[in-house]
Amino acid sequence: MVANPVRDLAEFVGIASVSASARHAADVAVAAHWLAARLRRAGLPSVSVVATPRHPVVLAAWRRAPGRPTVLVYGHYDVQPVDPAVAWRSPPFATVVRGDRIYGRGTSDDKGQLLCHVLAIERLLRERGRLPVNVVCLFEGEEEIGSPNLSDLLDRYRDKLAADVAVCSDTRMLAPCRPALTYSLRGSIGLELAVYGPATDLHSGTYGGAVHNPLQALCELIASLHHDDGRVAVPGFYAGMRPVSEAERARLGHGDADLLRAAGSVLPWGLDGVSLYERTTAWPALTINGLTGGYQGTGGKSVIPARARAKFSARLVLDQDPALVTKAIAHHIATHTPPTVRSRLDVLSATAAVGLNRSGPGIVAAAAAYRHGFGAAPVFLRSGGTIPAVTLFQQVLGLDTVLLGFGLPDDGTHAPNESFHLPTFRRGIATAARFLDEVAGLPSDWSSAYERRVD
Amino acid sequence: MVANPVRDLAEFVGIASVSASARHAADVAVAAHWLAARLRRAGLPSVSVVATPRHPVVLAAWRRAPGRPTVLVYGHYDVQPVDPAVAWRSPPFATVVRGDRIYGRGTSDDKGQLLCHVLAIERLLRERGRLPVNVVCLFEGEEEIGSPNLSDLLDRYRDKLAADVAVCSDTRMLAPCRPALTYSLRGSIGLELAVYGPATDLHSGTYGGAVHNPLQALCELIASLHHDDGRVAVPGFYAGMRPVSEAERARLGHGDADLLRAAGSVLPWGLDGVSLYERTTAWPALTINGLTGGYQGTGGKSVIPARARAKFSARLVLDQDPALVTKAIAHHIATHTPPTVRSRLDVLSATAAVGLNRSGPGIVAAAAAYRHGFGAAPVFLRSGGTIPAVTLFQQVLGLDTVLLGFGLPDDGTHAPNESFHLPTFRRGIATAARFLDEVAGLPSDWSSAYERRVD
Repeated sequence: MVANPVRDLAEFVGIASVSASARHAADVAVAAHWLAARLRRAGLPSVSVVATPRHPVVLAAWRRAPGRPTVLVYGHYDVQPVDPAVAWRSPPFATVVRGDRIYGRGTSDDKGQLLCHVLAIERLLRERGRLPVNVVCLFEGEEEIGSPNLSDLLDRYRDKLAADVAVCSDTRMLAPCRPALTYSLRGSIGLELAVYGPATDLHSGTYGGAVHNPLQALCELIASLHHDDGRVAVPGFYAGMRPVSEAERARLGHGDADLLRAAGSVLPWGLDGVSLYERTTAWPALTINGLTGGYQGTGGKSVIPARARAKFSARLVLDQDPALVTKAIAHHIATHTPPTVRSRLDVLSATAAVGLNRSGPGIVAAAAAYRHGFGAAPVFLRSGGTIPAVTLFQQVLGLDTVLLGFGLPDDGTHAPNESFHLPTFRRGIATAARFLDEVAGLPSDWSSAYERRVD
Repeated sequence: MVANPVRDLAEFVGIASVSASARHAADVAVAAHWLAARLRRAGLPSVSVVATPRHPVVLAAWRRAPGRPTVLVYGHYDVQPVDPAVAWRSPPFATVVRGDRIYGRGTSDDKGQLLCHVLAIERLLRERGRLPVNVVCLFEGEEEIGSPNLSDLLDRYRDKLAADVAVCSDTRMLAPCRPALTYSLRGSIGLELAVYGPATDLHSGTYGGAVHNPLQALCELIASLHHDDGRVAVPGFYAGMRPVSEAERARLGHGDADLLRAAGSVLPWGLDGVSLYERTTAWPALTINGLTGGYQGTGGKSVIPARARAKFSARLVLDQDPALVTKAIAHHIATHTPPTVRSRLDVLSATAAVGLNRSGPGIVAAAAAYRHGFGAAPVFLRSGGTIPAVTLFQQVLGLDTVLLGFGLPDDGTHAPNESFHLPTFRRGIATAARFLDEVAGLPSDWSSAYERRVD
């Protein structure tokens, strides 16, 4: 049987593994078991589905190359919610190929990129009957909700996961055949704010003007989070951040027009005198992710609701402490909540930013693999996103991750009509296979050459 | 067959006639035809369902008392949306009796109060074979969306609707057996604000800090509508309002504690130095009624959405011009929308405030009817709510309306678990019947005694 990557991806994306939604908990479990079965079919001898307090982790290992390095392959099989569902041109969990792209939730983030590694391993095992290095796979189902159970799992399976380098494909290249190695990720704090007013919903004619409306109070609280010039107004929000060096700033200074074009925005916004790339990768940010309250149907409703809610998140940079920033935000909310309403802030997730070595042998292997797969050397990039596992691998396992991304800027990750570029998918499989070969060819004392810090 | 008011109300409430929702358009039509059939069964000879551009109006007439006055009975058979649906203890469209209350959407506002008149007419026709005065009924299906087609209909059916006084039961009493005659209603402008940012939803990690988030921009716009002290910050918002006289202020100065208790609020909010009753009835207010945008499910989603929306409404007082206030709000929104996003303001409805004569014969008849039905004389009340028909009857037909309310402060109109007090329902039927008798007993030149203005 010849492997068919597009069919594999269509099957995988067809399982609605939305980790944030309790309604989809069974789908997340189905996706874990689909992936485990696919790993067994790829020829991996030791595959297990490990339960966590919420969604399972899929582990697999091939350790038949004694003396050779071990690569920890990480990816996530959970996906973002599809909201707004009406904005999808084709059903999010029934893939459709249009032109050279395959559409569906998770095609790029991260089922397609994860499959590059699974299919690369399968190809090597079929062609050679063995892998060039030892491989252990860890695929989780909670990345999109901040990997709340990963730290415990890493601790519990520390021996089983022992490796020399980790590799993860969940980041982006610059463009087709313009590969990029991401060397820093922002951290993230996920937050939910609820504002409570009257005991029940009220008629806004009868009570309008006499009670503080939770919708209004929520907007006032949210508005208090930023100064007019785009700076975050929360005292302590920027505390601890590592200044951007002039040398790095020079490298971060380009591409405002590209970023705006990709965003479909006409004008930039935010910190003055700082390039957009620097704003989104080297500075913390605070973004509102959702507002809910009162009447949301067609037409109007004369109501003052009993409560209103907002979801928002902070993106953190090196060397900020998520606990301190969370505390600063909570203090700001508490002191800005007027006595006429009550507020409650819940922390959904918290991950520190991470910086990765840019000169270690893992990077050398990745660069060579990209040249093989895409015919071009990679550039180094910072990313504004967060992959909690990369932070935790460094914190818990002392392991740096090679971010061998196969995403493209117009994949629409986290948005409706997410897609994956099929030529990049095929090249990604070749690159992932070559990466293992390149790691096998590294000098035997390479892992000790790692340093931790980014300049 | 003996009439059973509770069974009638249960049937009527069982039809989900939510006028704001396109999904319920057929239910609104069903409710109109149910009501027309019920009017025929009550013995009214001339009943018709008149189409409008949206929801129909039910007309009925009994004009067999030549030389006697004519009473125009108004009510509305449409209801507010049920949102939030999860907050209902029993299904909103399947009535349940608990204690001395019947629960369901529209039980009080306005199906129950409307039925008081229908059942009163039926009782008089059964007992006497005739009515003491001429009666024409106008029951509409668009009150909860601002009666957008009522003005045209009044103009078209001006002759058919000719009457000496209108009566409407869609307001509240102070407490059981403490009747009240409402003599002023606030006006209302229904508005919807949309804020547009990037072309599509964006990953908040990748773009957070570089593009203006529509959710944040919406909150900033909403927050700009009020000063910190509760005054509306829109220039021109208070323009044209009739000052509250010292004499009336003295009457409006009481009841802060009652209003807060009914609202389930601990602290008042709004204009300093003005009683809550005055704030909600003699001053304009601006209330946010709904917020929608981004991710609203469980957990988090790392998204900057392409747009965000808010519903809000202005309540107006005498002698404010809704067109001028709308213009003032639109100007404020336009000038406060930063160049980094676009905004759009839609006007859903607009109704001027109305003041009613407090000493005309219609009021005398109503006071006598209340004494008969409830054993107590009514007090005069201002209401903070809006009934567009009352404004339009004055503007188009030159007719004042007697607001013979049977609602109670804890009916929960517009809120989940709306209910109607059954003893008040029965007394309301007796009061509505007596009102027709009292009008019949008035001196024949009474209607010329009306003056329009409130002090």
